[in-house]
Amino acid sequence: MPEFFNVLPPDEARALLFEHLRAVLPAEIMATEDALGRVTATAVHSPQPLPAFRRSTMDGYAVRAKDTYGASEGLPAFLAVIGEVPMGQAAEVELGTGQATIVHTGGMIPATADAVVQIEHTQTMAGEMIPPFEIEVFKAVAVGQNVLQVGEDVALDAVVLPAGHLLRPQDLGGLLALGITEVSVSRQPSVGILATGDEVIPPQEMTGPGQIRDINSYTVAGVTQQAGGVPLLGGIVPDDLAALQAAAADMLARCDMLVMSAGSSVSVRDVTVEVVDRLGKPGVLLHGVATRPGKPTIVGVVDNKPVIGLPGNPVSAMVQFDMFGVPAIYRLQGVQTMPRRGRVWARLGQNIASESGREDYIPARLEEGEERLTAVPVFGKSNLIYTLVNADGLIKVPLNKGGLLAGEWVEVRLF
Amino acid sequence: MPEFFNVLPPDEARALLFEHLRAVLPAEIMATEDALGRVTATAVHSPQPLPAFRRSTMDGYAVRAKDTYGASEGLPAFLAVIGEVPMGQAAEVELGTGQATIVHTGGMIPATADAVVQIEHTQTMAGEMIPPFEIEVFKAVAVGQNVLQVGEDVALDAVVLPAGHLLRPQDLGGLLALGITEVSVSRQPSVGILATGDEVIPPQEMTGPGQIRDINSYTVAGVTQQAGGVPLLGGIVPDDLAALQAAAADMLARCDMLVMSAGSSVSVRDVTVEVVDRLGKPGVLLHGVATRPGKPTIVGVVDNKPVIGLPGNPVSAMVQFDMFGVPAIYRLQGVQTMPRRGRVWARLGQNIASESGREDYIPARLEEGEERLTAVPVFGKSNLIYTLVNADGLIKVPLNKGGLLAGEWVEVRLF
Repeated sequence: MPEFFNVLPPDEARALLFEHLRAVLPAEIMATEDALGRVTATAVHSPQPLPAFRRSTMDGYAVRAKDTYGASEGLPAFLAVIGEVPMGQAAEVELGTGQATIVHTGGMIPATADAVVQIEHTQTMAGEMIPPFEIEVFKAVAVGQNVLQVGEDVALDAVVLPAGHLLRPQDLGGLLALGITEVSVSRQPSVGILATGDEVIPPQEMTGPGQIRDINSYTVAGVTQQAGGVPLLGGIVPDDLAALQAAAADMLARCDMLVMSAGSSVSVRDVTVEVVDRLGKPGVLLHGVATRPGKPTIVGVVDNKPVIGLPGNPVSAMVQFDMFGVPAIYRLQGVQTMPRRGRVWARLGQNIASESGREDYIPARLEEGEERLTAVPVFGKSNLIYTLVNADGLIKVPLNKGGLLAGEWVEVRLF
Repeated sequence: MPEFFNVLPPDEARALLFEHLRAVLPAEIMATEDALGRVTATAVHSPQPLPAFRRSTMDGYAVRAKDTYGASEGLPAFLAVIGEVPMGQAAEVELGTGQATIVHTGGMIPATADAVVQIEHTQTMAGEMIPPFEIEVFKAVAVGQNVLQVGEDVALDAVVLPAGHLLRPQDLGGLLALGITEVSVSRQPSVGILATGDEVIPPQEMTGPGQIRDINSYTVAGVTQQAGGVPLLGGIVPDDLAALQAAAADMLARCDMLVMSAGSSVSVRDVTVEVVDRLGKPGVLLHGVATRPGKPTIVGVVDNKPVIGLPGNPVSAMVQFDMFGVPAIYRLQGVQTMPRRGRVWARLGQNIASESGREDYIPARLEEGEERLTAVPVFGKSNLIYTLVNADGLIKVPLNKGGLLAGEWVEVRLF
């Protein structure tokens, strides 16, 4: 029985993968409004300051601040309102000493004003607020008060987004606010997915004795989409070196990344290792990760394309694809800092046994209690896909821990 | 100046919205493999047990457990291996006393076997492992050991997914494992989005003095997509009752939900309230939420369609849309328990002032330290979209707190 060689902890395994995966996919230009979830290929600079003009943050009156100094409820300042700045237009009013103009929230401030008095701090005897009329101001304002300065949001030529930034809704908004309607992003990685196993049949078919339906192609495809990749399903390949070699070579030529969900028996794993090594250089980087589930994972790189051999068990396959496949998809797009995973803290509902020197991932269901969240482990062999269906996330038992006790606070990584 | 009426804390406001939003969108049938992110319209039952046959979880030998009782390193049990179960085929071997058959991980167990001895606990003198040959077994196995029982993953006719379940990659895998290749899901809500404001222009245009580009249509569209809705942009409507009324009525007729990002001045807000009330019953449910940013949010329902009036400030608009728009999109699809938001705990890098009786949301950047994560507030007026671009999430200051102190542990809701 061949021993696993080069079994690494997950962090070191990922570092090894990244070391051999330096090139980023080519860039393409696309409409900013369609670029949600894409990754910037180059840093984006601001072509203008934002805002481009001084804006009021209140409904009220643009004033010269010094005209309000000393004003109070008992001793108001009297100002003459000589005009109104319409929304969306230039503030053309010129204010002399003791003069003010109506402004609305977001409106432009005249060049001769330096502050805004909010309407709640004023009073007028005029029936209709049509200039000219007089107001009493009950509260002094400082220079700049209630005014958004030019460039307060973004300065001219500032780096608004670095290269390798995953675009979120607010990023699209920020770019469009500057009139940046096109953006250079990395091409989305195409991810070829092959299932192997003489016992595996397509989900559309009826199972005979000894047969099971393909699960991993579809879970891997779903996670690929969530990470911004484009899955390409290559179907089911027999457990045969020549057949797998041909299918893998074909898929790798057509895609930016290859995932094989191998059968879980040792002999089939050995075939996958051989296939990956024959595909090209550097080939297999590691064959075994110090985790459970999922120890017999194969991680390789061929011509700057990640090649991942997943265990056949559906739980192992998902945990391992999340550990190596997802970072690889992001890295191909130039993402340097991986998106932060959502986590929640919860009290552990039951003891968990583990082994030191291995990271364990246990599916868990979260139960909302009166005061706290409880994480209830969903135990089951890693062949059981429904342990993941019935779970909200995974509890991680760290490398150096022999287990976790009921009642401990644990971190649950949300799916 | 009209006062805000009916200002509610966010939880109560959401409860009020849900109270008036009971109908779920019609169902449609779609291919399971394309249903990622969709919501089940009906509960799904298992048409078969999973697995459908007893499977080995190890590479080794299927045996009758009692033939191994008492076996040890010093006193092995001797068994005759009389066959091999090929992967994907029926286990047709019949075992008599003292007999075993080769099985692979995932392979079927013969009816006459009740356990599997893993190959590591055996030894053979045979050169090639071609039956018949003899093995020594060094460790006893119990009945059922290393065997996956019929229905151990899912029992026949079990509810595998309830109605209102948001489909994740593992859920698709679970359905396909059962041969469920089509699934009934709620139609995706179409969300009409209108921007208003005489100062607002499309991002494609050059801004003149006093003009700003539309941001909110695009941030709301992005968040809508992330929640499984289909955004429909209706463009920019002038600050005018008749124009807004016409545009809102038209959009509402075409969509399942309507979002108006109103101008932020009080007069424009009042127009929005009037428009929503004129659209139909029940109309405006609340006009003001006890949060910052975003107090002047309008939440209404018209003919079971949510209608949301967002503040014009981009930060307020995003925070409020996340608070009401996203749950509404899920609820229209029948989701009862909202998907859990990702959160991380971090040390607060700086004091935050707040007011009791109000929930504050402060954008924060996360900085990875040697031992801990620090949440650095990104302060700035809520007109500044780049406070969100430069942030990784939002710190929530609870309703009953007057502020947070530097060094406190705070929860950051990830974007």
